[in-house]
Amino acid sequence: MNAISQPHPFDEATRLTGGPEHCHGRTSARYANMIGPFGGIVAATLLRAVMDHPDRQGDPLALSVNFVAPIDDGRFDICTKRVRTNRSTQHWIIELSQKDEVAATATAVLASRRETWSSTELPYPSVPEATAMVRVAGEGLPAWLTSYDIRLLQGGIPPLLPIENEAPFVRSITLQWVRDEPPRSMDFLSLTAICDTFFPRIYVRRSQLVPAGTVSFTVYFHVDSAELSALGDKAVLGHARANRFHDNYFDQTAEVWTPDGQLIATSSQVVYFKQ
Amino acid sequence: MNAISQPHPFDEATRLTGGPEHCHGRTSARYANMIGPFGGIVAATLLRAVMDHPDRQGDPLALSVNFVAPIDDGRFDICTKRVRTNRSTQHWIIELSQKDEVAATATAVLASRRETWSSTELPYPSVPEATAMVRVAGEGLPAWLTSYDIRLLQGGIPPLLPIENEAPFVRSITLQWVRDEPPRSMDFLSLTAICDTFFPRIYVRRSQLVPAGTVSFTVYFHVDSAELSALGDKAVLGHARANRFHDNYFDQTAEVWTPDGQLIATSSQVVYFKQ
Repeated sequence: MNAISQPHPFDEATRLTGGPEHCHGRTSARYANMIGPFGGIVAATLLRAVMDHPDRQGDPLALSVNFVAPIDDGRFDICTKRVRTNRSTQHWIIELSQKDEVAATATAVLASRRETWSSTELPYPSVPEATAMVRVAGEGLPAWLTSYDIRLLQGGIPPLLPIENEAPFVRSITLQWVRDEPPRSMDFLSLTAICDTFFPRIYVRRSQLVPAGTVSFTVYFHVDSAELSALGDKAVLGHARANRFHDNYFDQTAEVWTPDGQLIATSSQVVYFKQ
Repeated sequence: MNAISQPHPFDEATRLTGGPEHCHGRTSARYANMIGPFGGIVAATLLRAVMDHPDRQGDPLALSVNFVAPIDDGRFDICTKRVRTNRSTQHWIIELSQKDEVAATATAVLASRRETWSSTELPYPSVPEATAMVRVAGEGLPAWLTSYDIRLLQGGIPPLLPIENEAPFVRSITLQWVRDEPPRSMDFLSLTAICDTFFPRIYVRRSQLVPAGTVSFTVYFHVDSAELSALGDKAVLGHARANRFHDNYFDQTAEVWTPDGQLIATSSQVVYFKQ
């Protein structure tokens, strides 16, 4: 539990100041990746620029982020443009720049949802025994991982992060419990970043670290803010896999589930790699 | 085979005139949906605005389209903005408007790919016997379907499009062969539109037509232009499913395969529905 006077590091890292259309923030050492900030915190910050906007209407439904160029440590500027507000949806374009050069772009769709017929078709993943879990932590890992508690159930990266007795595999599947560290109540910003906490699929598939970086990242949210906040600060279950690696790029699809089997987000990304 | 003097209807429907940053086109009756144009042709037209641009560099890698408002029949304007050109990637923002109101936005990432280690992890779908195929055609279906030859292998919509002896199902899975009609050589524009040729998952799951419309649509391309054009005008295999339907929205993930088992595109979308 955090004292009221001390904001959560995630809120510090995504904090924006300035007017609603043009605001700025600063990268956070606690969410640093090997080069520049962790992509998930960038995506969450872009979404926050919309969430903090006084004209914002509805909850996030879809967010697509393109990582245009490396982001340097320090100050960045964000420009939000409200494209159109309809009866039940609202559309935004967001740009992050440094020294007047765009480094990331995003589009966000917000929606006011009403109760309808509902069904989750994707089966909840089969979760192995808890004893097999491996905490993702240690030397040689980027700083942002200290801001998460990630427990790997499937998809070890031997010898860096081996999972005991894990059979050799031909598919880059990861299954992990993940929550903010320290714990933080679930909201759309935390969830956005959590969708990007999976190691690059190429690490898992090849059991080695090679140059890799997300180029485009999309999240669809399947619940509204009331449903999300009801989750509190419990860990959620992330499940990710690649479909194809080919000529410098691979894709990843991923889902995030609550412990009681609710599918709260689905996500996809396309990632540069060199090997 | 088309005579040289007669462009393919797809090329007519996506044709743009005017300068590279500001161009315009017209909706085509042959690609009309129940209301406004077929989303796939809109996405292809937005991508074409980039492909036709003299500064374009590389092949499409990722395209994300947001459908902001209904598009009326007739003229539309497209504005393209080149966000940044890197050594191997190029980033674009595209907006489609009518009467100065934005009706669709898109971002596109282009890339120059080099040969790397490659692997397709997703298994090629199990294709049922050809005898079970149902041609998607007939009264009551929107006009754009006459511009495609779609053969349903799985995911009928009885009584409109029943598949004989198809067992009742609890998941909205569609498997279909699809090609442009008349045949057209495969390129990124055709492939973009083909990624959106699946019926809304809610039709399949509930065996009925309800109000539904795509809000956000993303395609990742897994091959370059040379690999694509080598496919000629053969039909490709499309595979789609929903993960969750909940409170006015469902998602869809889909893949497009060549007959010889090459995964050429993966796609996702989030769709409004009312029921």
